[in-house]
Amino acid sequence: MPKNRLEAFADGIFAIAATLLTLNLAVTEGHPLGHELLIIWPQYAAYAISFVTIGIIWINHHTVMHQIAHVDRTFLTLSVLFLAVIAFIPFPTRLLAQHIQDDGAQAAALAYGTTLTLTAIFFNAIWRYAAWGRRLLRQDAEEKAVQGISRSYAFGPPIYLAATVVALKSPAASAALFGALALFYTLESSLFGRRE
Amino acid sequence: MPKNRLEAFADGIFAIAATLLTLNLAVTEGHPLGHELLIIWPQYAAYAISFVTIGIIWINHHTVMHQIAHVDRTFLTLSVLFLAVIAFIPFPTRLLAQHIQDDGAQAAALAYGTTLTLTAIFFNAIWRYAAWGRRLLRQDAEEKAVQGISRSYAFGPPIYLAATVVALKSPAASAALFGALALFYTLESSLFGRRE
Amino acid sequence: MPKNRLEAFADGIFAIAATLLTLNLAVTEGHPLGHELLIIWPQYAAYAISFVTIGIIWINHHTVMHQIAHVDRTFLTLSVLFLAVIAFIPFPTRLLAQHIQDDGAQAAALAYGTTLTLTAIFFNAIWRYAAWGRRLLRQDAEEKAVQGISRSYAFGPPIYLAATVVALKSPAASAALFGALALFYTLESSLFGRRE
Amino acid sequence: MPKNRLEAFADGIFAIAATLLTLNLAVTEGHPLGHELLIIWPQYAAYAISFVTIGIIWINHHTVMHQIAHVDRTFLTLSVLFLAVIAFIPFPTRLLAQHIQDDGAQAAALAYGTTLTLTAIFFNAIWRYAAWGRRLLRQDAEEKAVQGISRSYAFGPPIYLAATVVALKSPAASAALFGALALFYTLESSLFGRRE
Repeated sequence: MPKNRLEAFADGIFAIAATLLTLNLAVTEGHPLGHELLIIWPQYAAYAISFVTIGIIWINHHTVMHQIAHVDRTFLTLSVLFLAVIAFIPFPTRLLAQHIQDDGAQAAALAYGTTLTLTAIFFNAIWRYAAWGRRLLRQDAEEKAVQGISRSYAFGPPIYLAATVVALKSPAASAALFGALALFYTLESSLFGRRE
Repeated sequence: MPKNRLEAFADGIFAIAATLLTLNLAVTEGHPLGHELLIIWPQYAAYAISFVTIGIIWINHHTVMHQIAHVDRTFLTLSVLFLAVIAFIPFPTRLLAQHIQDDGAQAAALAYGTTLTLTAIFFNAIWRYAAWGRRLLRQDAEEKAVQGISRSYAFGPPIYLAATVVALKSPAASAALFGALALFYTLESSLFGRRE
Repeated sequence: MPKNRLEAFADGIFAIAATLLTLNLAVTEGHPLGHELLIIWPQYAAYAISFVTIGIIWINHHTVMHQIAHVDRTFLTLSVLFLAVIAFIPFPTRLLAQHIQDDGAQAAALAYGTTLTLTAIFFNAIWRYAAWGRRLLRQDAEEKAVQGISRSYAFGPPIYLAATVVALKSPAASAALFGALALFYTLESSLFGRRE
Repeated sequence: MPKNRLEAFADGIFAIAATLLTLNLAVTEGHPLGHELLIIWPQYAAYAISFVTIGIIWINHHTVMHQIAHVDRTFLTLSVLFLAVIAFIPFPTRLLAQHIQDDGAQAAALAYGTTLTLTAIFFNAIWRYAAWGRRLLRQDAEEKAVQGISRSYAFGPPIYLAATVVALKSPAASAALFGALALFYTLESSLFGRRE
């Protein structure tokens, strides 16, 4: 089976999930608009963090698919489950933006973190399924690059789980960690790109 | 006529219909958020069932298009009708999630099941139009594979119709059957993929 | 300039505009759901008419792009204006569905018809710009096919304008005409496909 | 790294952001519909300006990608940030349409203008990153064309910043300027296309 339609479907889900984040943005009517636009800063922060996080996962998906020669039905099915979690992201993003300053902050941060942790787990699952015994890889995929990808993606689930667990103590610290992770991956991605 | 633009359009509709499911997710404001996030579990279940169902249909559409060499206007027109039903799915999904626990459960399950039954019927229609006398098939499409597809898709409409009719007795059982079907097709798709 | 990115962008707009129609569907809460799902039949009709209309335009756009060898910036700019009208369609569709049975029927039918008339006008504009002196056409585009397209598209604007003007007398008759036109183009497209 | 998946992702975001503008359109229920459809003209104007603006940026992105041979991770990361601003546009568009005639006009025009200014800045950033020392350009990209792009894009940020600052004196004049810029770029793009 060729891989190009999976790429088209995945690119569509990534693009739509990221763009739907804009529907989360809203001001309360009946207050002075200038003031409203300032106090909703958590909405901008949540938008930026989720958009960049989805964008970085998209870039990494790009890297994974670049190593893959073909896909089978199991890989397609795992990809559908992975994409179901990606498409879910706008919902906990809205919760985090709306509740980070009220008493729903802990539940919102836990929901957001759980979603990102699941994303990292499914991302590892599709990569490991493809790389197991080089099942779906290109003939000329370099073993060093393959092992480098496996190693670097293995960090994702424990890191996001840790940032999620922090919400049990401090939802604000957990949210700040999600922001720091998005920033770190953005910088790391840019610098890594320059090194190549 | 080349088939690549139909694939792009169809992949777009599949991806958007699946991702729009996320807009169905909502909590009632004014209640403790943690509790709300638990009691809306039917929303998560409906999201997962519909997303996976759309994903499996997308994989099967992939299989069908793989056997097809070119498309004609009749096939494009049938595909538009088929995609109109796919794009409709988020609406009965929302009804099912919101009403499965109140007295609208039966109507919601019937609406959901009717939509999935129509999906299965239109999917058979586009396949049978293409396969009739091998009208649109690739020269090298194996007769055995073609007949295998015809046989396995023929089960879709009666199975979904049966699960829909169950709602007349028990909407909850009907909804459980839709979930079981999504799970079955996911497992079957994965195992079938491994066998190949 | 290659034409493939215009096709990708246009396919995206067509697919999203058609799929967003599903967000128009809604029942009034607090009434028995089964009854509600029956009395909102104008919503289903409006969904079907608009989805099929967008689908037929997409098929025709497919036909036009098939005759075109390359695009220039003027053609891209005209295409953006054309796609702006396509993406607008979900709004008057919602108005038509909600108001066809109340005293907003005439305004809703006029808004819907004006949008479809503008769509037909812009569609003619992009085709005529491309076909003028065979400016953007493929070398091997047959003159007979080109003139056939010009002739058949020329009917669009006056027909949709006429169906719109009918709303001044009877909004219901105007809406029925839009449905009849969608049905006619669906059948004509299928039969035309069989003849080829 | 090949550039085709970036184009697919970017085309998706452009198409979705433009099409989501249609969700901003709404009438107040309970008033005569015909009258409502006339007094919401700022919504149509805002829809048209934003759709055309996104469309023109898409055409220019097309031009930029045409000069580029390949992409690296830094370019992908910068593109994600650029696309995050594009996908944000529907939010300030809604604010501008709803508040241009009330006392939130200044805040709305500033929000809209700031977003478009940021768009212009990020667009320059991705182009300059690609063109710096011809880092990502095609071997056969003509130096004259490259410098022409650099020169013409350099006008974007100061022009949009100026139109934004005008809102401090007159929000209506600022909004009119955004409309005039969209019209100017549409005409300039068409005429430029004819000259080629």
